[in-house]
Amino acid sequence: MVSSGSIELQTRGHADTHDVTPQVQDHVHASGVQSGLVTVFTASSTSALTTIEYESGALADLRRALDEIAPQDREYKHNLRWHDGNGHSHLRAALLGPSLTIPILDGQLTLGTWQQILFIDFDVRARSRRLVVQIVGEA
Amino acid sequence: MVSSGSIELQTRGHADTHDVTPQVQDHVHASGVQSGLVTVFTASSTSALTTIEYESGALADLRRALDEIAPQDREYKHNLRWHDGNGHSHLRAALLGPSLTIPILDGQLTLGTWQQILFIDFDVRARSRRLVVQIVGEA
Amino acid sequence: MVSSGSIELQTRGHADTHDVTPQVQDHVHASGVQSGLVTVFTASSTSALTTIEYESGALADLRRALDEIAPQDREYKHNLRWHDGNGHSHLRAALLGPSLTIPILDGQLTLGTWQQILFIDFDVRARSRRLVVQIVGEA
Repeated sequence: MVSSGSIELQTRGHADTHDVTPQVQDHVHASGVQSGLVTVFTASSTSALTTIEYESGALADLRRALDEIAPQDREYKHNLRWHDGNGHSHLRAALLGPSLTIPILDGQLTLGTWQQILFIDFDVRARSRRLVVQIVGEA
Repeated sequence: MVSSGSIELQTRGHADTHDVTPQVQDHVHASGVQSGLVTVFTASSTSALTTIEYESGALADLRRALDEIAPQDREYKHNLRWHDGNGHSHLRAALLGPSLTIPILDGQLTLGTWQQILFIDFDVRARSRRLVVQIVGEA
Repeated sequence: MVSSGSIELQTRGHADTHDVTPQVQDHVHASGVQSGLVTVFTASSTSALTTIEYESGALADLRRALDEIAPQDREYKHNLRWHDGNGHSHLRAALLGPSLTIPILDGQLTLGTWQQILFIDFDVRARSRRLVVQIVGEA
């Protein structure tokens, strides 16, 4: 069976981070799926998903690393063409990826104790975001 | 149900990029799956998949970032052992990843308006590539 | 159908690498699934999965790149808060990602000839790890 849901978020952009683990868990529980897969997907090219220990230290370390790999105040060909100032946002999103797939066992996400689902919005302004939560499995 | 397809590509290597969104969409439509997941996979250790706004600026920015993270003209242990000159290709492919999973809703990929499926071939010569498109879901 | 398995590993930490392709193949064969998807997932925020040509040169090149992107001997906010010395491990794991999804065709993984499934443990001590192998598909 397939069960589809979504998560609505209001972000501030600029690498604003959100722990969406509770919302994904809610969708898994509501689906009744006991064994299967859940894919969380951001339908955007300036935001991304991964897992992390969701505490302020690790989040700050990740932001610093991405600031170094793709600094905002650099010349980007994307900005030269489109003048929207989010060239670094596109780059970071492409490097980190838009999709995360997690197994479901006994009706639960198989996340580790110190592992949460992280959504980051790299865009340069506040955005309304809608993540897709797609569950495939057996009840 | 499961529906399997493939995408054949001729690439020039050297971070040659291809927007494979239309081919993936065609497979999704042909499968008849209305709700599910599609995984696009490159069976290769020198190429990768992600999503991006497929325009020349963002593509150039991504290529520059990967040139900096994994320059071609550096010493690689892989090259010292195998003399095939594609150590940087392997590194970039491992960092970006070979697999992309996207939800299907109402028979459509849930991509954003400015978000396309990007295949990059990092190898140092022209290659014939075959991507696997695997669809799991309900008709 | 859904088939669930796991892979138990003893690691040494410090970017200790393991080729888990044979164990994933064994689970695929045992499941009887002929066509579908397998997701390999690490339930941890200090380890990661990707694919690579599993030979010592490419592995050394990947380790060097991650040493440069996230050096161990740097100040991390995570370490300042928690004093466990694995701030770089969390960063590397978040950048590489905890999940890998591979299509199954004719009962086989669709990996390339020179492409293996790589598990890396970035933590700073020996660990017992348990990977989840989740297979969804048709017999």
